[in-house]
Amino acid sequence: MRSPPVRLKRIQSCYFGGSLATVSGLPIREHDVVPGAGSRPVDMNGRHAVGQLYAMQYEVEEPVSPYPVLLWHGGGLCGAQWEATPDGRSGWLWRFLQAGWTTWICDAPERGRASWAMYPEIYHGPPLFRSIEEAWSLFRIGPPGAGLAALEPYAGQRFPYRSIEQFARQFVPRWPGHEQMASAAYDALIAATGPCIVIGHSQGGGFAAHAAQRHPSTVKAVVGLEPTGLPSSPASAAGLPHLQVWGDFLEHDPLWQRYRDSADQYWNQLAARGVRAETLDLPAAGVRGNSHCCMHDLNSDAIADQIIAWLATVGHEP
Amino acid sequence: MRSPPVRLKRIQSCYFGGSLATVSGLPIREHDVVPGAGSRPVDMNGRHAVGQLYAMQYEVEEPVSPYPVLLWHGGGLCGAQWEATPDGRSGWLWRFLQAGWTTWICDAPERGRASWAMYPEIYHGPPLFRSIEEAWSLFRIGPPGAGLAALEPYAGQRFPYRSIEQFARQFVPRWPGHEQMASAAYDALIAATGPCIVIGHSQGGGFAAHAAQRHPSTVKAVVGLEPTGLPSSPASAAGLPHLQVWGDFLEHDPLWQRYRDSADQYWNQLAARGVRAETLDLPAAGVRGNSHCCMHDLNSDAIADQIIAWLATVGHEP
Repeated sequence: MRSPPVRLKRIQSCYFGGSLATVSGLPIREHDVVPGAGSRPVDMNGRHAVGQLYAMQYEVEEPVSPYPVLLWHGGGLCGAQWEATPDGRSGWLWRFLQAGWTTWICDAPERGRASWAMYPEIYHGPPLFRSIEEAWSLFRIGPPGAGLAALEPYAGQRFPYRSIEQFARQFVPRWPGHEQMASAAYDALIAATGPCIVIGHSQGGGFAAHAAQRHPSTVKAVVGLEPTGLPSSPASAAGLPHLQVWGDFLEHDPLWQRYRDSADQYWNQLAARGVRAETLDLPAAGVRGNSHCCMHDLNSDAIADQIIAWLATVGHEP
Repeated sequence: MRSPPVRLKRIQSCYFGGSLATVSGLPIREHDVVPGAGSRPVDMNGRHAVGQLYAMQYEVEEPVSPYPVLLWHGGGLCGAQWEATPDGRSGWLWRFLQAGWTTWICDAPERGRASWAMYPEIYHGPPLFRSIEEAWSLFRIGPPGAGLAALEPYAGQRFPYRSIEQFARQFVPRWPGHEQMASAAYDALIAATGPCIVIGHSQGGGFAAHAAQRHPSTVKAVVGLEPTGLPSSPASAAGLPHLQVWGDFLEHDPLWQRYRDSADQYWNQLAARGVRAETLDLPAAGVRGNSHCCMHDLNSDAIADQIIAWLATVGHEP
């Protein structure tokens, strides 16, 4: 089945938030910046942009909703995670555009096109890097140890695990402790987009829940895909609909059980305050085999469609 | 005048090239990766992707040419430079899509979404960072020194210099000496796209000319926007059309005069071998005031249109 074209009236990126940091006292050194053209002195002293966020807007011609969808990536990843699956299928960006949603793809500060700042002059030190081995177990593709070399994932695994090396190409470094920087940049983004739906994965799901607390009249709904780093308790203002989505194989991983407990606790607190706080537990709904990255799993489009259907139930009234 | 929508049949990113590097011997440390959820051990040992390139494909429904246009960014920048101007106008991506060209936006290895690898374990050391002050003079917006603080550019400047801080948000670090890594990744990209037009800015223009030498039957035309780092001499196979575009204010900058001389020398060598090697010298053509970044200048769309018109003259025969 050939899918129809998507009609767009704008594709344009912009940077939001951040500040300027001034660096001084660095030596000016000669570098061969252009091979074959001789060296030139490089002076890195001066002002540098720090903490900005990158966002790409895809504005459809005839949106189904006045609100755009903002897709916020997980930790150690960037907006590319929404643009394709590691095995080369189209990503959620395309699915949401096909469904008529104006969509923004974001790179949080430090990640991807948002760039990062020098250390120790601006950032305090080096970042964390994710190995393929960590991703294999942390994203619940398979057990740690020998399973990766043999490409033996958990039974029924829907992540396209044979493409794990393609997936690893999109890993970006991360700096723990920069959550305030990211939240401030997301605030600047939301101030620019106005009323919106935020869909966040993992760390991005936590940022989405925090942003909803700070901007309960601007964020119209939150979808957390295995969200982590949630607020410790809901602010009374956070009355907007929340949906969380969880995959499979948590029984193999005490860390994810802990993260899930934390998310459930927050969702229960929301519900106790009368907020529509729903959970799509895929295995409980009879859908087995999803990893931590449902937007990459073999049933990624089906899950996107479930979320799109849920968004229709939360209403689009301006 | 409201522009018509663009009809796309695919928007999808992918990573190309690179290899895997194995890191070992790093200590496993506890980090507060998820605030409020306790620390977890982070083991960065294992395999990491190195040297890959990120590319986003925008496939139009009815292309004017069988060849896509590949947009290759300059040094210290990433693909975002084609997506908007610093003062918030639409970028060349949109212009080329409107003109009916399937377009790929690329981030070379280390830059933006292509990510970068840890040092000193994989890369040899830290990168170079560009300050606002360096950009102001190096991109020929205005003279070095007090002009930036006063926002006093060269007379007639077309760069949207009041948006210099927005421009600085898209600067990314760069590692001199990684040219082979980038070229190998561009080779992998070209192998995937097949016959194509390459438009490169500055360092990206140099990469484009080198790629044309290596793949003279795949690269159908090269457009270098103030290209740097060109081959020292043309290979006999490089028979395809070349266009270089140069802006204004070179008389203020001996470094750019040197780069320009080097580019002219290569273009002259191409012409001496019978290659169609043309130069669009904007000031000589009566268009004054362009900076190093014509895709951001106030006449950016007009220059894009000139290039699109030139591409029509080089033929689209498969």
